[in-house]
Amino acid sequence: MQFIFEPTKAPNLHISKMNPSFFRLKERIAEVADLKSAAAVLEWDQETYMPEGAGEVRAHQVATLRKLAHSLLTSDEAALLLDEAIHSEDPPTPHSDHHLLLTIWKRDMDRARKLPSELVFKKSKAIGYAKESWKQARLHQDFSRFESDLSRLVDFARQESAILGYSEHPYDALLDEFEPGMTTQQVKTLFEDLRKELIPLVQQMTVAPQPADAFLYQKFDSAKQWDLGMYALKSVGYDFSRGRQDLSTHPFSATFDISDVRITTRILEHNLISGIFSTLHEFGHALYEQQIDPKWRRTLVAEGTSLGIHESQSRLWENHIGRSFPFWTSLFPTLQSYFPESLSGITLQDFYRAINRVTPSLIRVEADEVTYPLHVLLRFELEADLIEGLLEVRDLPEIWRTKMQSYLGVTPKNETEGVLQDIHWSLGAFGYFPTYTLGTLYAAQFYEQASASLGDLDNQIKAGNFAPLREWLRTQIHQFGRSKSASMLVNQITGSGLTTAPWIQYIKKKYGEIYEL
Amino acid sequence: MQFIFEPTKAPNLHISKMNPSFFRLKERIAEVADLKSAAAVLEWDQETYMPEGAGEVRAHQVATLRKLAHSLLTSDEAALLLDEAIHSEDPPTPHSDHHLLLTIWKRDMDRARKLPSELVFKKSKAIGYAKESWKQARLHQDFSRFESDLSRLVDFARQESAILGYSEHPYDALLDEFEPGMTTQQVKTLFEDLRKELIPLVQQMTVAPQPADAFLYQKFDSAKQWDLGMYALKSVGYDFSRGRQDLSTHPFSATFDISDVRITTRILEHNLISGIFSTLHEFGHALYEQQIDPKWRRTLVAEGTSLGIHESQSRLWENHIGRSFPFWTSLFPTLQSYFPESLSGITLQDFYRAINRVTPSLIRVEADEVTYPLHVLLRFELEADLIEGLLEVRDLPEIWRTKMQSYLGVTPKNETEGVLQDIHWSLGAFGYFPTYTLGTLYAAQFYEQASASLGDLDNQIKAGNFAPLREWLRTQIHQFGRSKSASMLVNQITGSGLTTAPWIQYIKKKYGEIYEL
Repeated sequence: MQFIFEPTKAPNLHISKMNPSFFRLKERIAEVADLKSAAAVLEWDQETYMPEGAGEVRAHQVATLRKLAHSLLTSDEAALLLDEAIHSEDPPTPHSDHHLLLTIWKRDMDRARKLPSELVFKKSKAIGYAKESWKQARLHQDFSRFESDLSRLVDFARQESAILGYSEHPYDALLDEFEPGMTTQQVKTLFEDLRKELIPLVQQMTVAPQPADAFLYQKFDSAKQWDLGMYALKSVGYDFSRGRQDLSTHPFSATFDISDVRITTRILEHNLISGIFSTLHEFGHALYEQQIDPKWRRTLVAEGTSLGIHESQSRLWENHIGRSFPFWTSLFPTLQSYFPESLSGITLQDFYRAINRVTPSLIRVEADEVTYPLHVLLRFELEADLIEGLLEVRDLPEIWRTKMQSYLGVTPKNETEGVLQDIHWSLGAFGYFPTYTLGTLYAAQFYEQASASLGDLDNQIKAGNFAPLREWLRTQIHQFGRSKSASMLVNQITGSGLTTAPWIQYIKKKYGEIYEL
Repeated sequence: MQFIFEPTKAPNLHISKMNPSFFRLKERIAEVADLKSAAAVLEWDQETYMPEGAGEVRAHQVATLRKLAHSLLTSDEAALLLDEAIHSEDPPTPHSDHHLLLTIWKRDMDRARKLPSELVFKKSKAIGYAKESWKQARLHQDFSRFESDLSRLVDFARQESAILGYSEHPYDALLDEFEPGMTTQQVKTLFEDLRKELIPLVQQMTVAPQPADAFLYQKFDSAKQWDLGMYALKSVGYDFSRGRQDLSTHPFSATFDISDVRITTRILEHNLISGIFSTLHEFGHALYEQQIDPKWRRTLVAEGTSLGIHESQSRLWENHIGRSFPFWTSLFPTLQSYFPESLSGITLQDFYRAINRVTPSLIRVEADEVTYPLHVLLRFELEADLIEGLLEVRDLPEIWRTKMQSYLGVTPKNETEGVLQDIHWSLGAFGYFPTYTLGTLYAAQFYEQASASLGDLDNQIKAGNFAPLREWLRTQIHQFGRSKSASMLVNQITGSGLTTAPWIQYIKKKYGEIYEL
């Protein structure tokens, strides 16, 4: 029994009524948004509740939804409507919602129409092979099994860059997909700053006395860990009427609308902190999308404005809040009440130092707050050189080992714990990695500003009062969705562009105290 | 990170390679199937895990998916491909898979193209209003609040019937949507048989001594009831690698592919049998779709061939198996071990008689096996007369009361427990009700044949050995999906058309023993 509903009214959008092409285009775009949301529901289900035997057909279903979304977005009908809407006799006022929507849709449609579907299709097939050979290569600790498939994906990325166009560096065109407006040169400058500061700092910390943290890795009942995570989510203010938490192999957040932003977590029985920090991380992502202004629903604008800004929100809640002393001042007594025996004799100070232990290691996803950017730096340098043609795929394992030793002082014993560790390249996703560290930098810059604006933020956190911070984030960042770019946000909030200073200062202060440097 | 997969190969389909239009059409149809499956996932999620605040946008998302599926199916491109495929120089051999697919697609596309989208859209809007006014009318026990919206939906149904066409009775065109090929006259004849047999039988049973069943309505722990249902599902052979069970307000089954057929159940704390029988009922639906031949995946053929046949599978497992003495011979000791105190002193015979108690009542969904068809008969007679124009909406409450008294000997005290009890009419679904009882009749006819073919079916059930029956159902019914019509199935399996005799005989024998008539 199927039937069709009336399109949502969006009464808060300020749009002239004199532009019928605009409204017809808006309906088409709403369908694109619905298809993307539906694909996201199917992917969420695949990672949480789908029966094991259903993977193959689910892949077809998701592919069909994404393909139809792409067809609608790149259709001649949509292009004509866009053209009519822009050149209407009643043109949109600059900076009006109307104008913003047309600008964003034009950007999305232009980008989507540039890539020939033949190339997209060939790349998709190549990804299919690469995912499989990447798995095989990892299993056999043998990069050569992945090499030719990866080379093909690098070739596709180079072609895409040429087709999409760039002004300075071919990597710019790829970066722009994930961090619109950011350039390779900007990233290089920022990351060079980080490298100079971090390498000596990490060396200092490595030789300093380490906080004891073995007590974190006892056996902790999974159900109790789950309850603790739910307790923490309620404390920080996750809106369960518009979201939920489930378990999955890899934690993620998924948005189907601002009214339905879900997160998943993973609980490790012998790790007290992995689950809770993944929960806080995903909460940061989810809060961003839950707090977007409802007027942007079903317009493609109700999304994070860039991956870097998105990551800034997860890192703000995971690190600046979650790994802070004030946060655990409030939560540690509760934690102890969940695990009285395992944590008997452990003080708040012991716990705080343990969860902030810094150890150079081989695996990015297990890295601490301080060494993480060095893992990203390495990948960014390799990617940029690969795309520019200064480096070839066959040379990756060797240069990986060299850089790991030089940046982190550790060398992988095999390629599975080295160049083969990340899934991103097997998916053809070049330009994604830098956004992790851009997020770290944005987070520190935003957090510094929030502290200045909210005054006694530490005391609010100690008291478990997160409403002022959530509201600050909503008004300063979240509500805008994609209607403000990352650089607009950072400039309007902090009065300057993206810079490394606040994060360096935060790290030096925090870890100077913990490590008594 | 999105990418497209290669279309599934379907190596078992016997199709000439010389018909490129056919293969292009098949790809279009696969997309329609994917969209319908995606809509079903979103609806399943809505009833199981979706946060409460997400309902409004979810309705848009599902509507967009269904609208796009309809657009693809009714597109001029698809119609042209169908025409080329049918009139190809290499035409399909009669009865080949190729021929079957074209026949079914032509039927679906013709029907979908007949209804003007203007009518479909207006009807959808009318349904939106009717759902709301139906809820209000129920709340206030006041049919007049629903009357004008229902009248509009009856008008739409009459219009649809005229557009779709029929040879004898205008109701035929509506019935055909749910039970393809069945006519109003056939249903009238079958139901008249039932009425003649059932009314005196029910009267006899009403005055006979009733089995004691109060022990079924004590408090039974929900978690244990859930475990019992899962135990029963494993016993009857539900394939959990291609399905799962969850909780929902109203039990249902949902198919996303033969590899992913899920069911839901509802557990009532003060009712020991509601949950287990709803589980067995939905299992019957799910087994049907899990056992369809994989070659029909993503062709629109991998569905039940009619609602009546679908219902026959759920009723076969719920009633012929689930409410039988042999079934509980095996399961009752387990049940007692779950609830030793509440069931102490209850014998298998007591339990069997209690779960088969017959009581004429007002509410269809709570009716027992014997009186259920009388509820359906009443609705069918009203619907057929409404569509033919022999009855008007305003007269429904009065005639409802009269017929309830005459068929079941009970009269509703208000309209909420009378004419307002079912959701179907508020959704504009006329022609649906008869399929419940057609399912009952098909089930008895199939079960009689299965018993004859499998010999010692009762002993197999006593031993908890359901594999032979599942396999019989697979080879005789399930594997074909929509590639064999309901009448083909019943004729090929039983050697005759649909008839009431096997069910009447089953009911008389079973309840003759229980009620010592």
